[in-house]
Amino acid sequence: MTTVKMVEYEDAEGEVKALFDEIMAAREIDFVPNVWKTLATHPPTLRRIWDGLGVVMAPGRLDRLTKEMIAIAVSATNGCEYCVASHTGAARKLGMDDEMLGELMAVVGMFNQTNRLATGYQIEIDAQYKDTG
Amino acid sequence: MTTVKMVEYEDAEGEVKALFDEIMAAREIDFVPNVWKTLATHPPTLRRIWDGLGVVMAPGRLDRLTKEMIAIAVSATNGCEYCVASHTGAARKLGMDDEMLGELMAVVGMFNQTNRLATGYQIEIDAQYKDTG
Amino acid sequence: MTTVKMVEYEDAEGEVKALFDEIMAAREIDFVPNVWKTLATHPPTLRRIWDGLGVVMAPGRLDRLTKEMIAIAVSATNGCEYCVASHTGAARKLGMDDEMLGELMAVVGMFNQTNRLATGYQIEIDAQYKDTG
Amino acid sequence: MTTVKMVEYEDAEGEVKALFDEIMAAREIDFVPNVWKTLATHPPTLRRIWDGLGVVMAPGRLDRLTKEMIAIAVSATNGCEYCVASHTGAARKLGMDDEMLGELMAVVGMFNQTNRLATGYQIEIDAQYKDTG
Amino acid sequence: MTTVKMVEYEDAEGEVKALFDEIMAAREIDFVPNVWKTLATHPPTLRRIWDGLGVVMAPGRLDRLTKEMIAIAVSATNGCEYCVASHTGAARKLGMDDEMLGELMAVVGMFNQTNRLATGYQIEIDAQYKDTG
Amino acid sequence: MTTVKMVEYEDAEGEVKALFDEIMAAREIDFVPNVWKTLATHPPTLRRIWDGLGVVMAPGRLDRLTKEMIAIAVSATNGCEYCVASHTGAARKLGMDDEMLGELMAVVGMFNQTNRLATGYQIEIDAQYKDTG
Repeated sequence: MTTVKMVEYEDAEGEVKALFDEIMAAREIDFVPNVWKTLATHPPTLRRIWDGLGVVMAPGRLDRLTKEMIAIAVSATNGCEYCVASHTGAARKLGMDDEMLGELMAVVGMFNQTNRLATGYQIEIDAQYKDTG
Repeated sequence: MTTVKMVEYEDAEGEVKALFDEIMAAREIDFVPNVWKTLATHPPTLRRIWDGLGVVMAPGRLDRLTKEMIAIAVSATNGCEYCVASHTGAARKLGMDDEMLGELMAVVGMFNQTNRLATGYQIEIDAQYKDTG
Repeated sequence: MTTVKMVEYEDAEGEVKALFDEIMAAREIDFVPNVWKTLATHPPTLRRIWDGLGVVMAPGRLDRLTKEMIAIAVSATNGCEYCVASHTGAARKLGMDDEMLGELMAVVGMFNQTNRLATGYQIEIDAQYKDTG
Repeated sequence: MTTVKMVEYEDAEGEVKALFDEIMAAREIDFVPNVWKTLATHPPTLRRIWDGLGVVMAPGRLDRLTKEMIAIAVSATNGCEYCVASHTGAARKLGMDDEMLGELMAVVGMFNQTNRLATGYQIEIDAQYKDTG
Repeated sequence: MTTVKMVEYEDAEGEVKALFDEIMAAREIDFVPNVWKTLATHPPTLRRIWDGLGVVMAPGRLDRLTKEMIAIAVSATNGCEYCVASHTGAARKLGMDDEMLGELMAVVGMFNQTNRLATGYQIEIDAQYKDTG
Repeated sequence: MTTVKMVEYEDAEGEVKALFDEIMAAREIDFVPNVWKTLATHPPTLRRIWDGLGVVMAPGRLDRLTKEMIAIAVSATNGCEYCVASHTGAARKLGMDDEMLGELMAVVGMFNQTNRLATGYQIEIDAQYKDTG
């Protein structure tokens, strides 16, 4: 139950409507996902997040699928259901199958485990790892 | 300040000593990192974590560098300093440069942002994303 | 699906019933919210949390609406759905509109992003920021 | 570097000084730990947290050591160094040895792992587990 | 809505079917919980997690119920609904009643509170707590 | 120990140097904080984060100090030391005193507590709170 009244496409005007059209075209979908209808209640955020995503998700040294899998790792670690669902959907479109997801989840699970062991024992950083820069 | 007295190599015996040797050989390093000296205070955990890492980090559908970068994403999201330092070190050995790390961090930052927007507005999962399985 | 059988108003007795009445009067509502019906399964916690809230949420140097907005920020960052819903409801009663919520969420999102960048790069605290006390 | 100027024992007055004395007597220590010197910068919080701890940590159906071990589990999961250190110190005083800590950390690590697997795959709660109340 | 198509018992073969049988026998249940049907989409993870749980949850210096209660503490702190539900169910089978759960939750809540106070004020570890090892 | 070699002012060129100058002028400081020297290793992120902060932190319906206090709340909840230190410094410059920080921390602590109680008991959202939009 979204905590704001989302902006439906038919009620959108001006910049918001233009962004909705841009989003559907870029994503090749024929509906406006809830995240954008929600952010449209605060147009500067809608603009900033959409533009930011364009920069961050553009293929570079990491390809798009790798970026979506990292998004799943972050979302699973933070416990964001909406985000897990949408990024898993995006990654599948880009070719992720159950085995790749299985490897991804195994890595995510393992390091959530070792992160807490490191913190729980307050393990100190080895001198040898201190000059990673 | 680790909260247990770590097991130093010269004090290790039996299975622990054998695992220390195995770890240094596998990693091609000539010291036992603090994480292993710490886990050695509870040998079943030392064994289980080391064996688990061997399974999880073996190259499969995802290569080793991608797995280390996902480990960095998880560790940054959880705020584990030791883990960030050691996985960044490992990823650099495998070829990650500043630009790749920059793209990785940009993705991690962006989705930590959108995760909280999704949660803070309680955005509902679109029907279109519900059948990702 | 609450993991305990909640105490309904009609089954409450003694101190619990008195607290239920106090809560409804203070909040000017005619039902007992689930959080209180749940905590009533452990009366010392019901008492302690209700009293603590009275102290913490009383207007002081920060007004009540600012406090509710901080509560939303915390709840969004932790991913607590019940808490986001109830604090958003409380903040709206106190006058928060979509634009204020939009600014709040923008701040929450931005700093969840920069928090992870700071942690992921292990940025050191500048000497200039060390004497904030 | 604490972000407030802590209240030192020799500068404490009135209720704060009385609480400092009460804390040292109850804990059988001859110094005021930093947490209390910090909270003393906001006396209502000092009072509320100290009283709350008295209620929560009193032996009941769970003994004191079990409660301290749960405190370590929470602190490791949240990544709070100060808290891990102080609760580990308290648990050791109450008899926790390396093997007990090892079992505790193994449990903490394992469920941080499975928590993320459950979230990352969005596993649905089995009908059989829905009536735990 | 699990993000993979779970492996149902009647579709399981070979090692997966054997593990499903082993799980139901060990847990004395006549259905395969969703977590195992999900992990079965990546058999090495199914094997590793099941075996790991056997090691970690075996009664040792901490009894089984204490371990399940720690699992609840971790799951509540991480915000994992599936995990809270399944570990609460397991703990109840082992004898946890509402009062024990009440004490557990009080401890979990209190230290989530103090963890953030310690972090928010950046309280430094007392010299006296630094030698817990 | 930052995990990249930061870009020092004297080594900065072109857009990065221009941004460093812009940052120092806007903040009225005569040094480049580590966060910007770090992000300068990936110029698109330096640009995006600085511009985003300008939009998000501009006074609007919430004033600048309220926004910095929300930033502290988020950073304390996430456990980001660098962020707590820098936002506390900024809030103090804008007039936050110990009492205001005390109220802020009391709110942050309290709702970290109740967030976990709500999650740990899996409290369901009251029908009355479901229409907050």
